[in-house]
Amino acid sequence: MTHNLRLILLIVILVLGAALRQADAGETGATATGDLGVVVERASGTLLIVDRSERAAVGRVTGLGDLSHASVTFSPDERFAYVFGRDGGLTKVDLLTRTIAARVIQSGNAIGGAISDDGRLIAVSNYEPGGVRVFDADTLEMLADIPTGAKTIGLVDAPGRRFVFTLWDAGETWIADFSTGGDPAITNIRGIGANPYDALITADGRTYIAGLFGEDGLTRLDLWQERPAPERILAGYGRGEAPLPVYKMPHLEGWALAGDRFALPAVGRHELLWVDARDFAEIGRTRTHGQPVFAVARPGGRQVWVNFAHPLNDTVQVVDVPSGEVVHTLTPGPGVLHMEFAPRGAEVWLSVRDGGRVEIYDTETFRKLGEIAAESPSGIFFTARAHRMGL
Amino acid sequence: MTHNLRLILLIVILVLGAALRQADAGETGATATGDLGVVVERASGTLLIVDRSERAAVGRVTGLGDLSHASVTFSPDERFAYVFGRDGGLTKVDLLTRTIAARVIQSGNAIGGAISDDGRLIAVSNYEPGGVRVFDADTLEMLADIPTGAKTIGLVDAPGRRFVFTLWDAGETWIADFSTGGDPAITNIRGIGANPYDALITADGRTYIAGLFGEDGLTRLDLWQERPAPERILAGYGRGEAPLPVYKMPHLEGWALAGDRFALPAVGRHELLWVDARDFAEIGRTRTHGQPVFAVARPGGRQVWVNFAHPLNDTVQVVDVPSGEVVHTLTPGPGVLHMEFAPRGAEVWLSVRDGGRVEIYDTETFRKLGEIAAESPSGIFFTARAHRMGL
Repeated sequence: MTHNLRLILLIVILVLGAALRQADAGETGATATGDLGVVVERASGTLLIVDRSERAAVGRVTGLGDLSHASVTFSPDERFAYVFGRDGGLTKVDLLTRTIAARVIQSGNAIGGAISDDGRLIAVSNYEPGGVRVFDADTLEMLADIPTGAKTIGLVDAPGRRFVFTLWDAGETWIADFSTGGDPAITNIRGIGANPYDALITADGRTYIAGLFGEDGLTRLDLWQERPAPERILAGYGRGEAPLPVYKMPHLEGWALAGDRFALPAVGRHELLWVDARDFAEIGRTRTHGQPVFAVARPGGRQVWVNFAHPLNDTVQVVDVPSGEVVHTLTPGPGVLHMEFAPRGAEVWLSVRDGGRVEIYDTETFRKLGEIAAESPSGIFFTARAHRMGL
Repeated sequence: MTHNLRLILLIVILVLGAALRQADAGETGATATGDLGVVVERASGTLLIVDRSERAAVGRVTGLGDLSHASVTFSPDERFAYVFGRDGGLTKVDLLTRTIAARVIQSGNAIGGAISDDGRLIAVSNYEPGGVRVFDADTLEMLADIPTGAKTIGLVDAPGRRFVFTLWDAGETWIADFSTGGDPAITNIRGIGANPYDALITADGRTYIAGLFGEDGLTRLDLWQERPAPERILAGYGRGEAPLPVYKMPHLEGWALAGDRFALPAVGRHELLWVDARDFAEIGRTRTHGQPVFAVARPGGRQVWVNFAHPLNDTVQVVDVPSGEVVHTLTPGPGVLHMEFAPRGAEVWLSVRDGGRVEIYDTETFRKLGEIAAESPSGIFFTARAHRMGL
């Protein structure tokens, strides 16, 4: 009996030790979240979870519905990814347990979402039935329904617990202010222009720019004004050589703000257009390999990386901002769809959709640092976005 | 025997279950790191670990040595804090386990440190014996020793795995480039001026500014230039009404870049000075409650928050950037030493040293959101700094 007790104790100690080592590994292993990210696998409706430090995939979450044009934001603790699907699905994914923490189908057809600056509200922009719906970031319970009677586009977060969005049919921009904690105060700005189809906000949360389908040029709002007045900029932009059909309208997310200038795709041309960020006057053009799709500034703005439209989308070019010269051309492979920089810019991750992989490059030496297998990868989103505005 | 085996198995299952539940709690509990931070408790040489989402302290780490003028940087995964003590101590603190992961006394007297943009190198700037030492961020093993034969100040990280620092005695700025992976390539820039005592780098990693003790004005370097040429700016700055004794030299970390302008303490006066960020021409002044110490821009740059020198250091003022007007004055309590914003600016945390607490305010409504007891708190540092340059 004494012998058996000793045996029991020994086994208990061994098992306990093993279990605690496992617990310790769980706690001291890869549970920090500042260097995680997700890759949207559009064809399979899945999300690949990646670790920037390891340059590796660490898990996959399935069952996210239609992920065409999906976008992603993150909770302030960088633990949860909110995935906005095209089918109206809003999914909260836990990056630590690699499971779905909550999911709602909040509309029939949605286009993008945003998280409030305090991290407590999730807003989604809807085509069907139109309008914006706002959810509790913890539970995904609906807190506010803002019908607009119109397709709603260009939803972004702005400082002061505000969301800004635009109505395709009515040519209006609305600002919904949740800072009082009660029902939102809505400011309605008319005269944005005919059929705004997309919008962006600058990283300081000050300038909102809407692209127009129904007429040339774009409209700028200064959100620092008490009641922002629409101002028309870049009169010729959106046309190329001739008015463009719908499917060619440039996504404004393809614009890069680098220091005191924007780099943007010159519509319908193999050129990057440079405009002064203060007055939007054109200050130069750069001849590129193909029709640019995304121009993305390396953090700090020293270079802009550019990918291209089909069939030249196997190539990426790096453009030096002060000189406007192409300083490097690389050919990662077929279908380079998206580029995401490490938050301090030391490396860039590229999704090579038709190559079934993500490639990682050193931004200083252009040396390839690694690659990760992924199923038709499109968007790449790092958790560092949790700490930035207007994403 | 069969009975004993069953007993053993039962005990093993029970113990294993308990251990795994604990592991699970560790993994699915508060282990995300994006919303953590540390508060320096200078008098006791301790670090209070805080959770932004909970607005609460979650632990304390002791044994960090002399924390006067301590500064802190974070690993890319936002798990580890690197604490630079005045006594030459470099300590790596694990925010998950709340323990010291590594610690070295790397010199006799140090002043600040930085982490490379890829998160792999830690650099420390030394008074005694002078020079800069560079350590492996994982192990704190020394990788490079850069003697300068001089007190070294104004150490910052710059894009491309570079560190920039300045020599008090020699009036030189050195750029150490680690991008090749081997020994650093050193660029030595002479003619910075007489006795540079502090320096800053802008958040885009482009502009390095050194303050001068031995003469009026400051010196600017454009790090985008192949070989940066020193340029003198703000000719009268540093003097106030009369030349100042050493202890009054303004710390450049008290400068705020808000949009297209800097806000900076007007030396020896109850004024905030506004200068154009492009040409450093003065564009205005704001009369303040006391002699400003730190001007800190709310992320986005819409307001600047200002604290003051003794004996008026119980007060904080909020200045509207476009108008330059004081829009709010609050009195948190005696000895407001430091202000840290949530990364998207929704709230600000203030250390009230002589009140023994940290206070938290909503930046939009100025409503007090909470407070946390702390022992003589000074610097507050949130992990979101891991994703920013030049900190």
